[in-house]
Amino acid sequence: MTVRFGLLGAGRIGKVHAKAVTGNPDAVLVAVADAFPAAADAIARQYGCEVRTIEAIEAAKDIDAVVICTPTDTHADLIERFSRAGKAIFCEKPIDLDVERVKACMKVVDETKGKLMVGFNRRFDPHFMAVRQAIDDGRIGDVEMVTITSRDPGAPLVDYIKRSGGIFRDMTIHDFDMARFLLGEEVVSVSATAAVLVDPEIGKAGDYDSVSVILQTKSGKQAVISNSRRATYGYDQRIEVHGSKGMVSAENQRPVSIEVANGDGYTRPPLHDFFMTRYTEAYANEIAAFIAAIEKGATISPSGADGLAALALADAAVTSVEEKRQISVA
Amino acid sequence: MTVRFGLLGAGRIGKVHAKAVTGNPDAVLVAVADAFPAAADAIARQYGCEVRTIEAIEAAKDIDAVVICTPTDTHADLIERFSRAGKAIFCEKPIDLDVERVKACMKVVDETKGKLMVGFNRRFDPHFMAVRQAIDDGRIGDVEMVTITSRDPGAPLVDYIKRSGGIFRDMTIHDFDMARFLLGEEVVSVSATAAVLVDPEIGKAGDYDSVSVILQTKSGKQAVISNSRRATYGYDQRIEVHGSKGMVSAENQRPVSIEVANGDGYTRPPLHDFFMTRYTEAYANEIAAFIAAIEKGATISPSGADGLAALALADAAVTSVEEKRQISVA
Amino acid sequence: MTVRFGLLGAGRIGKVHAKAVTGNPDAVLVAVADAFPAAADAIARQYGCEVRTIEAIEAAKDIDAVVICTPTDTHADLIERFSRAGKAIFCEKPIDLDVERVKACMKVVDETKGKLMVGFNRRFDPHFMAVRQAIDDGRIGDVEMVTITSRDPGAPLVDYIKRSGGIFRDMTIHDFDMARFLLGEEVVSVSATAAVLVDPEIGKAGDYDSVSVILQTKSGKQAVISNSRRATYGYDQRIEVHGSKGMVSAENQRPVSIEVANGDGYTRPPLHDFFMTRYTEAYANEIAAFIAAIEKGATISPSGADGLAALALADAAVTSVEEKRQISVA
Amino acid sequence: MTVRFGLLGAGRIGKVHAKAVTGNPDAVLVAVADAFPAAADAIARQYGCEVRTIEAIEAAKDIDAVVICTPTDTHADLIERFSRAGKAIFCEKPIDLDVERVKACMKVVDETKGKLMVGFNRRFDPHFMAVRQAIDDGRIGDVEMVTITSRDPGAPLVDYIKRSGGIFRDMTIHDFDMARFLLGEEVVSVSATAAVLVDPEIGKAGDYDSVSVILQTKSGKQAVISNSRRATYGYDQRIEVHGSKGMVSAENQRPVSIEVANGDGYTRPPLHDFFMTRYTEAYANEIAAFIAAIEKGATISPSGADGLAALALADAAVTSVEEKRQISVA
Repeated sequence: MTVRFGLLGAGRIGKVHAKAVTGNPDAVLVAVADAFPAAADAIARQYGCEVRTIEAIEAAKDIDAVVICTPTDTHADLIERFSRAGKAIFCEKPIDLDVERVKACMKVVDETKGKLMVGFNRRFDPHFMAVRQAIDDGRIGDVEMVTITSRDPGAPLVDYIKRSGGIFRDMTIHDFDMARFLLGEEVVSVSATAAVLVDPEIGKAGDYDSVSVILQTKSGKQAVISNSRRATYGYDQRIEVHGSKGMVSAENQRPVSIEVANGDGYTRPPLHDFFMTRYTEAYANEIAAFIAAIEKGATISPSGADGLAALALADAAVTSVEEKRQISVA
Repeated sequence: MTVRFGLLGAGRIGKVHAKAVTGNPDAVLVAVADAFPAAADAIARQYGCEVRTIEAIEAAKDIDAVVICTPTDTHADLIERFSRAGKAIFCEKPIDLDVERVKACMKVVDETKGKLMVGFNRRFDPHFMAVRQAIDDGRIGDVEMVTITSRDPGAPLVDYIKRSGGIFRDMTIHDFDMARFLLGEEVVSVSATAAVLVDPEIGKAGDYDSVSVILQTKSGKQAVISNSRRATYGYDQRIEVHGSKGMVSAENQRPVSIEVANGDGYTRPPLHDFFMTRYTEAYANEIAAFIAAIEKGATISPSGADGLAALALADAAVTSVEEKRQISVA
Repeated sequence: MTVRFGLLGAGRIGKVHAKAVTGNPDAVLVAVADAFPAAADAIARQYGCEVRTIEAIEAAKDIDAVVICTPTDTHADLIERFSRAGKAIFCEKPIDLDVERVKACMKVVDETKGKLMVGFNRRFDPHFMAVRQAIDDGRIGDVEMVTITSRDPGAPLVDYIKRSGGIFRDMTIHDFDMARFLLGEEVVSVSATAAVLVDPEIGKAGDYDSVSVILQTKSGKQAVISNSRRATYGYDQRIEVHGSKGMVSAENQRPVSIEVANGDGYTRPPLHDFFMTRYTEAYANEIAAFIAAIEKGATISPSGADGLAALALADAAVTSVEEKRQISVA
Repeated sequence: MTVRFGLLGAGRIGKVHAKAVTGNPDAVLVAVADAFPAAADAIARQYGCEVRTIEAIEAAKDIDAVVICTPTDTHADLIERFSRAGKAIFCEKPIDLDVERVKACMKVVDETKGKLMVGFNRRFDPHFMAVRQAIDDGRIGDVEMVTITSRDPGAPLVDYIKRSGGIFRDMTIHDFDMARFLLGEEVVSVSATAAVLVDPEIGKAGDYDSVSVILQTKSGKQAVISNSRRATYGYDQRIEVHGSKGMVSAENQRPVSIEVANGDGYTRPPLHDFFMTRYTEAYANEIAAFIAAIEKGATISPSGADGLAALALADAAVTSVEEKRQISVA
């Protein structure tokens, strides 16, 4: 079976998914839609697909699934429309920045028996997948403590930050999902600390750029997250999981692995400087997983519920910083 | 000048300091005292010093300085006695498990213009010293965030735990001191999470074995500490410090650095399995720093105030866990 | 400009190049030829190109360049035919196992002003390219000594070995080319030592499986090559280059970079176990370089002369082992 | 039992051994002799031993063993004298630069049933010992190929080089011994290549500064040695041993193991810059092994025969370079 795709949104992340879909032997990209015709045209030319309107894709008989890469504030509406249209849906995170809106959207997905996958791409990074596999294989025993280090090479534009929902909902949300993915038990409390250390403009925009979070599960397992909008040495993405029998960790990735030694010491190059080059394989893998789930009629993961859970942790972190206390989550 | 030493306490840690003193070209070990004559005799024989009573050492004209390695509950009294006797004092941490008792003790030290160094040996580990040096050299710019991983190879006996003051005052206290040493700014708030994941007996003794802590300074700098009483792979002691211009980290230490590669992968040996082999050089370096400070009449560091500050953070962490909130510290 | 390709040979390596050509935005795969129709059909179906005979490709007006992936003993003939037909030629190494045949072939290429690139793919590995770049950037000063470690995960079938020309012409030839690429000066002498340590059947087939080689240039620069047909831990491919000001090295590559730590130590997974996964990017990069050279009318490298030079070093190594002496090369 | 030592030679290496002897609980340093009274006095003062003449030490009833650290050209004579005097002898390498002189000396040792250990200290480096242990434990199966990288931080004075016997007898000799220690089978042939790349003055003195060597055993096992008198990044001392089941390697050592990351990449400090700091533990371990062998009446290793074998390989390497051929050794 070949899954026939429509792509909604032809921007930066839309291009990434266009490449992933067309590079997958079990998928074909049928059409692309974008508010900017030039953006849609570019993808259509490169991959030999059609340009259509969103309405046309919604109604199309020759399209089985859509990838939603439009602006965040359109996600929930589009999920509802395409769920009602019977299309399988891959939606970039987040579904929405508002928990209630997400819940309403998921209600529609449930009622229409929709198939929805949320784009937490890091679950599909080969290195993090191997971490999870090592846990599942029992190599470290019962998971006890998780440490996630996630630092961006540089802060986004303040304009972006203003629309982002804040660092916890925009950046840490990936780490909340990763913590849930690795802890194997739901988080019941959140303690967060936040500051503006990188750029005062971020503070003026009402956000933070440097945050630390402790998550805890019912049985006491803990995850510690350390985030910064600044890492001069590249895109710092590390995980370590401690268990009763041992520890498994994933190292950082760099474009080339050479080392130069001289009187100043031994120097390896900086890390990747962009999430798209760092997570190239993850993007291809997540679309492959989406396609495979559709083909086999299997459960789709990460689901809308996963998206909601991560957002709830982000909301709790915001409250924890404001109220200087640990916040319980349902 | 040669500094003439008396050693109070000839147990495990007393032996470490006896070796450090006798191996230092600017020091001589004159006498040792211990409640168990056999323990004192053993050190006297090995290093050619005398066995004396504590009273005799207190009164001795041929002794300039003492190293206090007796049980914790005697530390504050001995500091007061030897401060009054005009001896320079190196005291193993902690001064006492009770903040008020420490304050009273330090008052005596101040009144007698005593010289007191507290044994936070990790400040003298060559690798951690190099981390601090890199900061002082401006290699990472302004310090922003510190991550300290500190995991013991195994839990101590529950009997020990009962007398220890609890994990925050016994184990994390080293990390509180290290965080203060690296942050370069006083901590103003503590958020801690704790659980019993390793051994239920530890829980029955009223303590925890797995804890996570976030410290924050006035300007928003953060330190995250992750502690466990279990690390199957050895004594895990890592530090990383993120600054505005870069990051400096100290790797773990292992007794031998070989690697065996085969079909199972590439395997390096476990880490040191004991704090005394891990911190061999640190113990020698701290005594050397104590001696050098005495010789030059220089300020002694870490001081009693440093011991008090770390203990206050431990107390705050205990309260934070109990009250599920961030605790402010003066 | 788009370069229009014909593919000669649809076997294992032919598939690799089909993927590289079709994945390149400046190229199109027009036709494929193979003695086994099923093999050609498979590629035609997957990439939407035609199946043609070699003769038809030779005569085709819609084909600018060919990739030769047929058996080794057909390479020289095909190069001559397609050079006369005016096509740019990418030929898998080696041109031939016989130096005289290579020379005759290159004469035809010269006379017809042909464009010939020889498939020493490792020059296009991003890590080895970065090593070369570091040299070119002057980071290690003048090159003095090169060490190349190249060990296969396992020996090929003895049937293959019998047709291979022997380990020096089949396996070490890559390292001879790499040494030339890095030394920056022609090799003038070869000293080789060889043995059968892995599989006696290889010895019965008249070949070796474990060899060591020293190359030297006129000014005295040295390269040491260590080869084995066995590496239980994966495909071991390392380079280090020592210069007057420092050293640059390229580490091994592994599919996933996790580490599991427990009482047995710290274990990372084995390396890639297959040259095609190890050198995925190198294959794409070399075809891209071929296409770029055609488009710009630039000099093609590595050239037929590079193929010849590496083969001459292999021949000298064979003689060195047989005659137990250093062999001079022109 | 306590072994009573005399030290012959109070220079740089004499001091190292004085420290090793006095730091060993089973040994005592009784006397030191040196042609320069001030040098002997300094050691006598620091360690509380006597200054005596060589003759007095030879005749002394209170001395069981000597450590010979005098100039190379006195070693063979002193070994003969002290062997006749019935003292156990630890002699710094080499016994002599002339094979015949070494043989004559060993004849005297044999006739007098002397106990002689030769100072190939690297066999006692904890990391190299662990490599050997991994082999002995069967972790890599049968040894097949050994790679030894040994590069000095900088060249010695040309005056030293003139007296040194040349790079093969002065520097590579350590690697010849290490190869023998690891191969587990006697070497039967030597192929060497040499050049002057570091300093023309070394060439004028008749020596080389950059050499590559292949050793082979009867069964075909190979060891490759790469030496240079220059390594800007510190004292480069690495070993890897490949066997039928896997590989074991020993990494380089550095004084501190921190890493600084910034826009230029990840930088670790240079290696040790001096053999004495690199091999501190090795020196203590070899004296401990000597003492233990004396106490237990055990066979002493490395023996005079080991010294002779390494020297014979150095001689063969010299001939190999001169005659441009592989040299057989008995």
